[in-house]
Amino acid sequence: MKAVTFQNQTISMIDAPIPEVSAHEALVKVLMAGICATDVELFNGYQDFQGIPGHEFVGMVEKAPQAPELVGRRVAVDINIGCGQCLKCRTGDTRHCSSRRVVGIRGKDGGFAEYCALPIDNLRVLPDRLETIHAVFAEPLAAALEIAQQVHIRHDTKIAVMGDGKMGLLCAFALNHYTTNLTVLGRHADKLDMAARQGISITNTAEVDPEKLEDRLKGAFDLVVEATGNPDAINQAVQLVEPEGTVVVKTTSHQPSEMNLAAVVVNEISLVGSRCGDIGFAVKCLANQWVNVAPLVDTVYPFAEFEKAFEHAMQPGSRKILVAFE
Amino acid sequence: MKAVTFQNQTISMIDAPIPEVSAHEALVKVLMAGICATDVELFNGYQDFQGIPGHEFVGMVEKAPQAPELVGRRVAVDINIGCGQCLKCRTGDTRHCSSRRVVGIRGKDGGFAEYCALPIDNLRVLPDRLETIHAVFAEPLAAALEIAQQVHIRHDTKIAVMGDGKMGLLCAFALNHYTTNLTVLGRHADKLDMAARQGISITNTAEVDPEKLEDRLKGAFDLVVEATGNPDAINQAVQLVEPEGTVVVKTTSHQPSEMNLAAVVVNEISLVGSRCGDIGFAVKCLANQWVNVAPLVDTVYPFAEFEKAFEHAMQPGSRKILVAFE
Repeated sequence: MKAVTFQNQTISMIDAPIPEVSAHEALVKVLMAGICATDVELFNGYQDFQGIPGHEFVGMVEKAPQAPELVGRRVAVDINIGCGQCLKCRTGDTRHCSSRRVVGIRGKDGGFAEYCALPIDNLRVLPDRLETIHAVFAEPLAAALEIAQQVHIRHDTKIAVMGDGKMGLLCAFALNHYTTNLTVLGRHADKLDMAARQGISITNTAEVDPEKLEDRLKGAFDLVVEATGNPDAINQAVQLVEPEGTVVVKTTSHQPSEMNLAAVVVNEISLVGSRCGDIGFAVKCLANQWVNVAPLVDTVYPFAEFEKAFEHAMQPGSRKILVAFE
Repeated sequence: MKAVTFQNQTISMIDAPIPEVSAHEALVKVLMAGICATDVELFNGYQDFQGIPGHEFVGMVEKAPQAPELVGRRVAVDINIGCGQCLKCRTGDTRHCSSRRVVGIRGKDGGFAEYCALPIDNLRVLPDRLETIHAVFAEPLAAALEIAQQVHIRHDTKIAVMGDGKMGLLCAFALNHYTTNLTVLGRHADKLDMAARQGISITNTAEVDPEKLEDRLKGAFDLVVEATGNPDAINQAVQLVEPEGTVVVKTTSHQPSEMNLAAVVVNEISLVGSRCGDIGFAVKCLANQWVNVAPLVDTVYPFAEFEKAFEHAMQPGSRKILVAFE
């Protein structure tokens, strides 16, 4: 089968054997995959990952010796594979198993390949009405929905999402279901317009004097979601949230943040790190059209043109780049 | 009256008029005051504070036109004076009023003086059985007890307190009531011994290879209290707490922290800033001898020797330095 690997910041399209399916696994034929910022980080050497990347994808089950009812079904994938033995795993929290493998990221081949072997327990069957091009957002949408699992959000919780990139917009689209009081702060008129069209308030920070903005919005929000990708934006997030408020941190960066922790202490602010969430719940939200991810699709490339797709995904300002396998 | 001021890193003992008592205020004769790390910061120019410092003290009410029943009573002081008008104040949360004055820290003279004028609402009457030398710890103990107001602590919550300075030990002494599973990590055998004598587990990090320590204790705690005073210790706190655990941040520093926020995101850790707490509850804990602060007392100086006391308080490793007025 054709598969992608990254080595020394080079993409290779290799011929690899179709993976063997071990006990409790299924063979999944990949239909469509999304390219994520984490893939760009893996490309740049993050985690020193040696296998096949790709952790946002939808496939069709071709073989599943222990679950024949899955054959022919489309599935999304929970990417965390726990050890099954530790306390976290035994209480259902494989996402935080310290020896977990993560599909396409750590210790397990992912979906930038024609086939992928995956634990049956990690597959989420898609309802027929959910289109593949939307279902491929299940993994990043689950990460956005995770915010509401960690923090109690009421209809009147004043929320700001900082960042109008893919993760920022997805967080905004997800949280729009939980509150009537949501603002996205970004610097790109076209991206902000996508939020405005879903009834979300917007502030284009490129058009406002930064000091005036901070004066106007200081302490204005109960909850701020920091999803800019900028490691130092955390300090502005701390300014925007009211005393005793919460900042959810979505940005992951290899750069350390120069952080003014004294402001966190004095105002007794909570910072909550937030990573990935429940894929099944994301599939439900997508299938019911509670979250409309269609505007986030930029371009769909055929898998053969993966390199071109990846270059496009690395361009600042690109929306979600997808690769299709048929 | 005699009073202390700080100017250009110099202590002056001045003659000041006994303060006028405005409506809703009482005149308090100061009996004993503690010197805190924040006082050292004010001395070094923090907050550009121009008045009389001193925010940990016990006094005797001499005059209280609107509350004559207070005259002759010993009191501890809630140092936050809210505006009374904003939403925070109207919901009883003067600690987070954005235009609050803070006794001895911001906009209001404090207790390094023979007399102090204070709002009646900020006074907490001390029971006779509570000695002044212990009651003077009410303000910092309230800050330590605040942790349990912010985070739900169970009898089996595994807690580490990082730091065996005054704040670290006070946090440990306070939290010892909430859990059976408490460890203090510090570098001073004599300080750690104080914790051990109260039945608290101790780890002397000066005696352990730092890498081995991190291996052994990585993810070992549900809750880590960072009270070292070192702005970069936050990164070790994040390593010691288990995934989805909580780090309470007590250290305030003017230095920014070089922080690896990615670890916070990946392990979905919560950081909770924690400042000051309820003085009345601290008085209750002291009066009932639930928290034994006696070992924390270092030396009591007469007020006339304030400068000497302050120099002692600035010495690393000193315990609580007190000044007595009679």
